[in-house]
Amino acid sequence: MTETALKTPALPTGGGQPFGGDAQASPADLPADLGDPLAVAQALIRQPSVTPDPGGAQQVLAAMLERLGFAVTSLPFGEGEGRTPNLFARLGTAGPHICYAGHTDVVPPGNEADWRVPPYAGEVVDGLLYGRGACDMKGGIAAFVAAVARLVAKGAPRGSISFLITGDEEGPATYGTCKVLEWMEQNGQIPTYCLVGEPTNPATLGEMLKIGRRGSLNAHIVVEGTQGHAAYPHRADNPVHRLLDVLAALRATPLDHGTTYFEPSSLQVTSLDVGNMATNVIPARAQARLNIRFNDLHTGAALKGWLETTCRSLAPRSKVDVRISGESFLTQPGPETEQLVNAITQVTGLVPALDTGGGTSDARFIARYCPVSEFGLVGASIHKVDEHTAVADLLKLAEIYETFLKGVGM
Amino acid sequence: MTETALKTPALPTGGGQPFGGDAQASPADLPADLGDPLAVAQALIRQPSVTPDPGGAQQVLAAMLERLGFAVTSLPFGEGEGRTPNLFARLGTAGPHICYAGHTDVVPPGNEADWRVPPYAGEVVDGLLYGRGACDMKGGIAAFVAAVARLVAKGAPRGSISFLITGDEEGPATYGTCKVLEWMEQNGQIPTYCLVGEPTNPATLGEMLKIGRRGSLNAHIVVEGTQGHAAYPHRADNPVHRLLDVLAALRATPLDHGTTYFEPSSLQVTSLDVGNMATNVIPARAQARLNIRFNDLHTGAALKGWLETTCRSLAPRSKVDVRISGESFLTQPGPETEQLVNAITQVTGLVPALDTGGGTSDARFIARYCPVSEFGLVGASIHKVDEHTAVADLLKLAEIYETFLKGVGM
Repeated sequence: MTETALKTPALPTGGGQPFGGDAQASPADLPADLGDPLAVAQALIRQPSVTPDPGGAQQVLAAMLERLGFAVTSLPFGEGEGRTPNLFARLGTAGPHICYAGHTDVVPPGNEADWRVPPYAGEVVDGLLYGRGACDMKGGIAAFVAAVARLVAKGAPRGSISFLITGDEEGPATYGTCKVLEWMEQNGQIPTYCLVGEPTNPATLGEMLKIGRRGSLNAHIVVEGTQGHAAYPHRADNPVHRLLDVLAALRATPLDHGTTYFEPSSLQVTSLDVGNMATNVIPARAQARLNIRFNDLHTGAALKGWLETTCRSLAPRSKVDVRISGESFLTQPGPETEQLVNAITQVTGLVPALDTGGGTSDARFIARYCPVSEFGLVGASIHKVDEHTAVADLLKLAEIYETFLKGVGM
Repeated sequence: MTETALKTPALPTGGGQPFGGDAQASPADLPADLGDPLAVAQALIRQPSVTPDPGGAQQVLAAMLERLGFAVTSLPFGEGEGRTPNLFARLGTAGPHICYAGHTDVVPPGNEADWRVPPYAGEVVDGLLYGRGACDMKGGIAAFVAAVARLVAKGAPRGSISFLITGDEEGPATYGTCKVLEWMEQNGQIPTYCLVGEPTNPATLGEMLKIGRRGSLNAHIVVEGTQGHAAYPHRADNPVHRLLDVLAALRATPLDHGTTYFEPSSLQVTSLDVGNMATNVIPARAQARLNIRFNDLHTGAALKGWLETTCRSLAPRSKVDVRISGESFLTQPGPETEQLVNAITQVTGLVPALDTGGGTSDARFIARYCPVSEFGLVGASIHKVDEHTAVADLLKLAEIYETFLKGVGM
């Protein structure tokens, strides 16, 4: 650890405040060895932090990062009960700047009595660390903290390392990563490369890295018709038939056949609603709901236009309400992603697939500012009772992160 | 009137009983001149008889028919509150035997205060006879009673004439025309030809005669799928998509292009029901309801088979519940229908269309036993407030019926 490593960046502007005076985690909450990812993960799991994280988990993390020499800035956004705790922490000021992004909030444990061990106990049974957040994603954060601690123990990194941590990733995410990124941009803290620590491996550590995500939109179609007797359809205008025609047109041809890194886009009709129990009546209205997961050949706006045009041409008296949850994004593999792949292969012996499938994550916000990829633990047990990670995976992940940081020149 | 005309048929078996002793209509309820269709119609309208007819309207009719020499048999079927009054009345025993079929029950008047004149007053205003049942179908019955009265006044008919009257045509019809027909068959009373007096003319008396009706069936399709996340459709089995495929296949080609006397068959999807409000979830089940109005190229059983096969092939985990409300039927125009057309043309100057459109009527039951056609008043105001018929139409209809009866040899 050198003088450089401990140097504090310029005091942030725009609402940020140093964590120092506020951090209330007692030294007893902190593991003695921050290079031990299991101990760090247990310390984080033992702070219950269902969305939005009430703050304890971030205070423990802030205290650990301060001990490692990070300048930690508390960035709460939002008002009153919706107030979201976030933190940005940076070690060093030189480039390259590698940022690790994640969240301390967790989904609710469900019925705690159903758990093998209490969800906030952080107990290890048969080589498995149980607890809410074990994989999603306090375990991932702990592995990165441990990787940094080991690196720092050998001397100050050459570039700089930061943490972008939100307490509202599992919730609406309105006052989380988005707002921190705005603050980072205003304060010259946009990194060279960002690694999100979400659990990306379906079953085995090392099998999958995410370099992008599909976009997602939801549409609600309402078709108006003219009610009438089923025996005289020519006197009515059956909105069900018009809706079926619209849906048939939307499903007639695949949206695409996939791209280098993306699966084909997918349109799923998730609901149909008429609610007409009278067998001899043509109803006045028919509704459908659909979800589109789309790749980098599409934009939400273009798909919205396509939905509107199709509805207008086949059901002139219809309305389409389209909500775009996220655009697709892709970080074309470059030197940092290559180093991450190398590190994964070196530790696990596996060459990870460069994937873009699955749901959305906060990486969609980060992609607007810098290259971003995602790699973390095995996600099979996330959001379930008995969420757990193999302790061996936790150790390997810390090794992968450390190898990666060295690879990109820290 | 001759001895033959007054001869009573053999006492009916199987539950029938002569009306004589029971008829409680006082002579004051009966019009003096049964050859006056307006007076007869008024006498019937003044007996409120919402389905099932509580009996008064049939008692008045029975008393009139007895005065004309008919042997009237009361044929109540069903038990307790569901008991339906019906009557069969026959004048003469020789062939040909022409039967007039109809119903004395009426639909409810709705809000009586909305009527121009009280619905059971039988008042004439500006040449229009108002009242519930004026067209559907006490007016029709009155016209036939008047036609028979005029004929009888000139001497006994050469063949025989009968009335098949139910008090439950507007209701479930379980203990009405069906049961009377069974009794008629058991008692050797199946006619040569049956004329149903339902209002068949859309706007002008004489424009339309019905010689058949389309069949009708209702189907309820339930498709089971496998629930899943909308982002991973390959791990789910979307029942909405399977249902859309089934409905697309059912709608892909027209059922037919119509036949000589029938419009093309029509399939109307009347409801779609999923009820899934979660935009990121593929639901477990999807349902649809549809109605098919089919012509003489189809049978209910064949359509049921087609629906089942289509569902099975495109949605193996589906169930189809098919209810056949009625088969299609057609009476190919023969000598009696020709006489009816001639009578209509002679009185109105119009050549009636031989139609098979619209909903179902009790003619579908009669068609199993003998040739049947339908001709009555103008139906524009039926089932509405201010149901009415032009008095002129009532007079013309009596003349048409009388001309028809003469034409077929009475």
